Amino acid sequence: MDYMTSGIVYLVGAGPGDPGLLTLKGKRCIERADVIIYDHLVNDKLLEFAKNGAEKIYVGKIAGKHSKPQEEINSLLISKAREGKVVARLKGGDPFIFGRGGEEAMELSNNSIPFEVVPGISAATSVPAYAGIPLTHRDFNSSIALITGHEDTLRGGSKIEWKGISNCIENLIFFMGVKNLPNIVKNLIEHGRSPDTPIAVIRWGTTP
Amino acid sequence: MDYMTSGIVYLVGAGPGDPGLLTLKGKRCIERADVIIYDHLVNDKLLEFAKNGAEKIYVGKIAGKHSKPQEEINSLLISKAREGKVVARLKGGDPFIFGRGGEEAMELSNNSIPFEVVPGISAATSVPAYAGIPLTHRDFNSSIALITGHEDTLRGGSKIEWKGISNCIENLIFFMGVKNLPNIVKNLIEHGRSPDTPIAVIRWGTTP
Repeated sequence: MDYMTSGIVYLVGAGPGDPGLLTLKGKRCIERADVIIYDHLVNDKLLEFAKNGAEKIYVGKIAGKHSKPQEEINSLLISKAREGKVVARLKGGDPFIFGRGGEEAMELSNNSIPFEVVPGISAATSVPAYAGIPLTHRDFNSSIALITGHEDTLRGGSKIEWKGISNCIENLIFFMGVKNLPNIVKNLIEHGRSPDTPIAVIRWGTTP
Repeated sequence: MDYMTSGIVYLVGAGPGDPGLLTLKGKRCIERADVIIYDHLVNDKLLEFAKNGAEKIYVGKIAGKHSKPQEEINSLLISKAREGKVVARLKGGDPFIFGRGGEEAMELSNNSIPFEVVPGISAATSVPAYAGIPLTHRDFNSSIALITGHEDTLRGGSKIEWKGISNCIENLIFFMGVKNLPNIVKNLIEHGRSPDTPIAVIRWGTTP
């Protein structure tokens, strides 16, 4: 693989919202990129790091309304890289935590496109931190679970083991779960979680 | 509270090892700090961002051998802040994910010291990513659990619900679990996890 002529894709975690939570490496990828392909959850301020003339392509998804289907995004990443471009693919939070970065990485790999994953600050840890909630404390808990808040309904019934997670894990974090919140709470309580369990619901965490 | 005279403590997540995974905000905290108090797991390269004359205090812990007990670290943070200093407290990974940042934050709060938490890239997500392992993929899994690999033995028997986590969560991540690895594997298999489950053991992830 000739990296000079084939281009490369950086799958960059843009963090949870506060632009200060981008990594130094993520910033360098944006600065270098010929093409920036970014999501709805990415803070626009990060685009200011782009070099002059960089092409910026919005492929954002709003819950329930995909601006571009995933297949189109995959094709775009592949075709830009094949033109020899340096592509920064900016994804909200961390690309590999419910960010479908795994699917994009697999497509790139299947098409022999060089790529690199640049982890980002996940909403899972930063959003509670900004809200003053430490997820672990050695006096109180030894486990946390991260769970999708909107399961892919194409997969059929719930794959979440409600009985297990209701009882075995001390802190539970559901991603993108607002629409599904009544179901989540109902399932947890039916499966044995105490109705007195404190919860926090956070939206647009880490932003003003 | 007069912020101008009382100093402030930034509890900064230094990331998992690769200095490029520090956040932009974390870098600004180091640059501003009069005093930098850092752990064993923090990459020394990050100290190069410190301004001239900044005081650097190592309080690192090596597993099983605490260089300074937590109480001493807490007192140090409080006394430096009371001198009016800007203190950057650098912790490996993310301060609130098994990093005891919660304990330090609580001590600062109890002593009316202004502080701010700057989340870091947790080893939980970045180390598998650098190793090519996406933690979530919508076709395969909807949950991940982060679990301490060395429980605080002062708390008595295991608080981990082995039966639950062996069966209810698809991907399990144990932190600092090398010494305890045989016990972890034994507990998981005894409680119903298939012995064919693939595992990865990663040490000093994201570093060369």
